[in-house]
Amino acid sequence: MFKTRTTKILKTRKAVLGEKGAVRFAALGGLGEIGRNMMFFEYEDEIIIIDAGLQFPEETTPGIDFIIPNVSYLGGKKKNVKALVITHGHYDHIGAIPYIMEQIGNPTIYATSITKEIVARRQEEFPNAPKLDFEMIKAGETHQLSKNFKAHFFGVTHNIPEGVGMMLETPVGNIVHPGEFKFDYDLEGKPKDLEVWEKLGEQKIHTLLLDSTGAEEPGYSISERIVEAELEKLFKQAEGRIILGTFASLLDRLAEIIKIAERLGKKVAVSGSSMKTNIQIARNLGYMKIGKDVLIPLEEIGKYRDDKILVLCTGAQGEPQAQLMRIASGEHRYIQVKKGDTVILSSSVIPGNERSVQILKDDLARQGALVYHYKMVDIHSSGHAPQEELKSVMKMVKPKFFIPIHGYYFMRWRNAKLAQDAIKLKPEETVLLDNGQVALIKKDSVEISGETVPAYYVMVDGLGVGDVGEVVLRDRRVLAQEGMVVIISTLDRQTGRFLKNPDIISRGFIYLKENKELVEEVRKKIRHLISSVPRHQQPDADYIKGTIRDQIGQYLYKKTKRRPMILPVVIEV
Amino acid sequence: MFKTRTTKILKTRKAVLGEKGAVRFAALGGLGEIGRNMMFFEYEDEIIIIDAGLQFPEETTPGIDFIIPNVSYLGGKKKNVKALVITHGHYDHIGAIPYIMEQIGNPTIYATSITKEIVARRQEEFPNAPKLDFEMIKAGETHQLSKNFKAHFFGVTHNIPEGVGMMLETPVGNIVHPGEFKFDYDLEGKPKDLEVWEKLGEQKIHTLLLDSTGAEEPGYSISERIVEAELEKLFKQAEGRIILGTFASLLDRLAEIIKIAERLGKKVAVSGSSMKTNIQIARNLGYMKIGKDVLIPLEEIGKYRDDKILVLCTGAQGEPQAQLMRIASGEHRYIQVKKGDTVILSSSVIPGNERSVQILKDDLARQGALVYHYKMVDIHSSGHAPQEELKSVMKMVKPKFFIPIHGYYFMRWRNAKLAQDAIKLKPEETVLLDNGQVALIKKDSVEISGETVPAYYVMVDGLGVGDVGEVVLRDRRVLAQEGMVVIISTLDRQTGRFLKNPDIISRGFIYLKENKELVEEVRKKIRHLISSVPRHQQPDADYIKGTIRDQIGQYLYKKTKRRPMILPVVIEV
Repeated sequence: MFKTRTTKILKTRKAVLGEKGAVRFAALGGLGEIGRNMMFFEYEDEIIIIDAGLQFPEETTPGIDFIIPNVSYLGGKKKNVKALVITHGHYDHIGAIPYIMEQIGNPTIYATSITKEIVARRQEEFPNAPKLDFEMIKAGETHQLSKNFKAHFFGVTHNIPEGVGMMLETPVGNIVHPGEFKFDYDLEGKPKDLEVWEKLGEQKIHTLLLDSTGAEEPGYSISERIVEAELEKLFKQAEGRIILGTFASLLDRLAEIIKIAERLGKKVAVSGSSMKTNIQIARNLGYMKIGKDVLIPLEEIGKYRDDKILVLCTGAQGEPQAQLMRIASGEHRYIQVKKGDTVILSSSVIPGNERSVQILKDDLARQGALVYHYKMVDIHSSGHAPQEELKSVMKMVKPKFFIPIHGYYFMRWRNAKLAQDAIKLKPEETVLLDNGQVALIKKDSVEISGETVPAYYVMVDGLGVGDVGEVVLRDRRVLAQEGMVVIISTLDRQTGRFLKNPDIISRGFIYLKENKELVEEVRKKIRHLISSVPRHQQPDADYIKGTIRDQIGQYLYKKTKRRPMILPVVIEV
Repeated sequence: MFKTRTTKILKTRKAVLGEKGAVRFAALGGLGEIGRNMMFFEYEDEIIIIDAGLQFPEETTPGIDFIIPNVSYLGGKKKNVKALVITHGHYDHIGAIPYIMEQIGNPTIYATSITKEIVARRQEEFPNAPKLDFEMIKAGETHQLSKNFKAHFFGVTHNIPEGVGMMLETPVGNIVHPGEFKFDYDLEGKPKDLEVWEKLGEQKIHTLLLDSTGAEEPGYSISERIVEAELEKLFKQAEGRIILGTFASLLDRLAEIIKIAERLGKKVAVSGSSMKTNIQIARNLGYMKIGKDVLIPLEEIGKYRDDKILVLCTGAQGEPQAQLMRIASGEHRYIQVKKGDTVILSSSVIPGNERSVQILKDDLARQGALVYHYKMVDIHSSGHAPQEELKSVMKMVKPKFFIPIHGYYFMRWRNAKLAQDAIKLKPEETVLLDNGQVALIKKDSVEISGETVPAYYVMVDGLGVGDVGEVVLRDRRVLAQEGMVVIISTLDRQTGRFLKNPDIISRGFIYLKENKELVEEVRKKIRHLISSVPRHQQPDADYIKGTIRDQIGQYLYKKTKRRPMILPVVIEV
C-alpha cells in the first residue's frame, strides 16, 4: 500500500519536473483503432484539441450504438481548453461533439465552412446539447489559437471537401498534423499540390504526426480521375437502371457521379436522408453544381425510361438498415431490383463487413442485377495515403521526430518503419504511443512519459452515455453464446421449504417446450438439493442460489455440453 | 388454399415425368456458402454422395459449434445410397461424417489413404458413431460405385495430399467433379500435370462441376515454389526464434516448411494437437520425411539457441482458443513472445476474421515480434484455382454443360460468366443451382426442376445436433443486442394482489446496481398497473404478463431507447 503511494507521488513529481518546457501530447482515441479520433496538445495552462470522433461498435461490444472518447481528463481542466480544431467532416472526426462539448467547457470549434455546416446540422438532432461557438477557418490562414499555440492551416485532399491539416507553432517547435489525406492526381497521373508539403519542409518541422490507415497498403492511391473514368464507362454500358451505393460522406465522389450522370442525360434520385442532407449542404456551399431537373424525387423514377435513371444510395457495406440492403431484400418502398439493373458498389469493404457485403452481392445478383464492386473494376479509391505517398510526405516535410497516428498498432508500427526507411529516423525518433499515454515533446526529444490519462471506452447505447460498462457487455456476450436459464424457487419464509415446484424460464439455451424431460429432471434435482439440507440447518437464500448455480450449471453442462448463464432467484413468502 | 394444392400435385407429377432417364443432382450444402459441402447424384434407385463437410458458424448463428448438412432426404432413401466419395481430408468435406453416417445407412466411404486416415482418426472421438466401411481409392483407378455409376478418379493439387477428382460415367453421359484444386507450377513457373485435364477433354464430357471459391480472384495461383522460397528467405533473415502460424490441414505446406527448417539446421516444435496429429498421419504414410532429432517437444525449446528454433502452430486466423492467440495473449504454457521473435502468418484471412487477425498482429507486434503476413510477402497461396486456371480447365475439359459449385451465389455467378466467356456456353448451359434444388441432367439438357429437397441448417451445439433452431438463435441475437429483464410478480392466489414487491433481475441491459432509481420506478409502475384493475375483475396471470411486457417494455424504451427482452413471471401462492 505504502509503496504504491510513494511511487505515485514520485511519478507525479517526476512528470511535473519532466514537463518543464515540454508540450504534452496524448490521444483519447485513434491510436489502437480506426475511428474515435481525438488528440490534444497541452502546454502549461493551455490545451488544444484536434477532432472529436466516434468509433463504430466491435464484435466485443454487442448492441452498442457507438463508442466515444473518454474526456474526463479534459473535463477536469476545462478552463484550459482553448480550441477544438476539426480536420474534416467525417463522423470518426466529428461524431462525439454532441456528447462531449459540455464536459470540456464548450470551447470554440475551428472548422472550414462545409465541416462547420455538417457539425451544426448534426447538433440540431441533440436539442439538449449546448449551442456551439464556431470560428471559420480556410486553408492558407493562420489563427492564434491561444497564447502558446498558433495554427497555420493548409488544404489536403481527402474524399470530402475542405479537409485541412495544420502546422502548429508551439514553444518547442513546429508540429505538423495533416489530418487525413491522400494525393490527388492530374489527368496525366502526376500528383498535384505537392508544394504544400514542400513549403512545410522549409519550416523546420520538429514533429510530424501522420495517418497510418493506409500504411499497410503498398504503392500509390488510385487516382479519382481513374475512378471517374471507370464509373463513366459502367454508366455508358448500363442498359437499364443504375443503382450506385457508396458512403454518404464521400462528397467529392458524389459530386463527380452526379456530374457524369448529367452529362449522359440521366436523372438522379437519392435514397437515404444522410446522403440527401450532405448533398444539400454541398450544393448550398457551391461544391456541387447540379443542373435544373437533374435531381428527381425517388418516387418519380417510374416516370422515366430505365436507362435514364441513376439511384444514389447508402449501404454499400451491407449495413442492415441502409438503403441498398432494403433494396436487395425487397423492403424498399420505391425500388425493387429487376433484371437489367446495374448495381455499383463504389466503396471498399470495412474489415468486419465482408460477410454482409457478400450477402448483399448475392441477393442483388440472384435477382438479376449486374453487380460491380471495387475488386472487379477501379470504382473506389481510399481516402488514406498508402505507403509511397506517406514516404513522399515524410521526405518533403523532413521532421526530426515522427508520431504515427490513426489506426491499429500494427499499422502505426508499419508507418514508423516507413519513416525509419524513408528519412532515416532512428527508432527512438519514431514514437509509438497508445491511447492515453502522454508524450512529452521537448526541444530535442519526444519521450513517452510514465503518465497516462483515462482513455477507456465510453459507450453510447440508446439514450445512455457511459452507462453500459464491461459487466453489461460481458453478460451480452455470454447470453449470445449460450443463452440463460432463470430458476425461481418459491420458499416458505418460516420453514425454508418449497411452496411450489421451481419455475424455470430459459431463452437462447434450448427450446424448453421440446425438452420437457430435461426441465423435469432439473426441477427434481433442485428439490433434492434443497431438501437434502438437514432440517435444523434452514438454508438461506444465498446458499440456495449458490447451490443451484453450481449444481444445475454442472448438470446442464453434463447433459448438453453448453454453459448457459444460470440465474437463480429465491422468493420467500 | 385449393389453388396451392393443385399446383403442388401438378408439380410432383411433372417432376416424375421429367425425371425419366435423368440423373438427378442436388447439393445439401456448398451452394450458398463456403463449407458444408455435400452433393449427390441419383439415378433410379441409386444414390452416390460426394463429400460430407461442415460449415463454421456465422454471425447470425451465435454460440453454435458448427453447421452440418441436412440429410433427411437421403435418410428416407438410405437403402439406395451406394457410396460416399470423399474428395479430400478438409473438415468442410469430411466434418459431418460422424453425425450423419447412421442416418444415411452407413454407406461405403471411398477415400484415398490419407483422407481415410484423417476420417478414421476423427471418428474415434465419437464412440457412439458407427464403425466406418472404407474402400481405398487411388488417382488413376476406376471403381464401379453401383450399377449405374462408374468413377474414374484423378489426382488434383490442393493444399493437402491425395486430393482427388472424378469423372462419373452415368447413363446420361460423363460428369466431371474435380473436388477442390489449383494448378501446381514447376520451378520455371510452368503449370504441371495438365495432361489429366486434357485427357478428360478427350472423353466427351457432358457436365463439368467446378469449385467457385476462387472465381472472384483474377489471374493465376501463386506457385507454392514461390511461397517456399519466400518462407526460406524469412527463415534465413530471422535472428531469433520463428513462430509460424498456419492451418493444421495445410499438410503440403507443413511438409515443405519442416524440410526447409531441417536444411537450415533448425529444430521444429509443434504446438497444437490437431497439427501434431496431422503431421503424424502424413509421416506414417510417407508424406513427410523428417530427419532424426528435427522434431523436438515444445517444452524443450529453451534448450536451444533462439535462432535454432521454429515453432509451428495453429491460429493464424486469430481464433480465440488456438495456439497462436494464446502465445500472443501471454497464456501459452511454453512460449512467450519476446523481442527478436519472427512471427509468420502463412495463411490468408477468412472473411469475417479480419478484426481478430488485426488484434493478433497488434498483440504480437506490441511485444516486439517482427510480424509477416500474406499481404506483405508471398507466404501463402490459396488452394482454390483463380479465374485464369478455371478458364484453362474449362477449355481443356470442354463440357457441354457447366454447374458452378462451392461458394456464395456471386462467386458461382462469376464462375458461370467465366464459362460463358471462355468456352462460349450459352446462359442456359451454365446452371446456377441453390442448395436443395434438384437439377435434372438429361442427355441433351440440364434443367432445374421445381422440386427441392430439405437443405436448411442443422446446427451442432455441444452435444445437441439439430436442437438449436431459429427460435433459440433469434433469442440469442436479441439477448446479445439489448439484454433482458426478468420481472417476477408474486401474487396471492386468492386475492390476486401482490404478496411482495416485484423482483427484477436483468443482464446485459443496464447495470441495475447503478440504476436503482429506474428499478424503483419500474416496481412502482407494475404495482400501479396491477392495482388499477378493478377489484371485481381479478387479473389472471396472462393479463399481468401481457401488461408488464407491453407497458414496462415501452417505459424502458422511453427512458433508455433500448428494447431489452422482457420476461414477466407470475408466481401465485
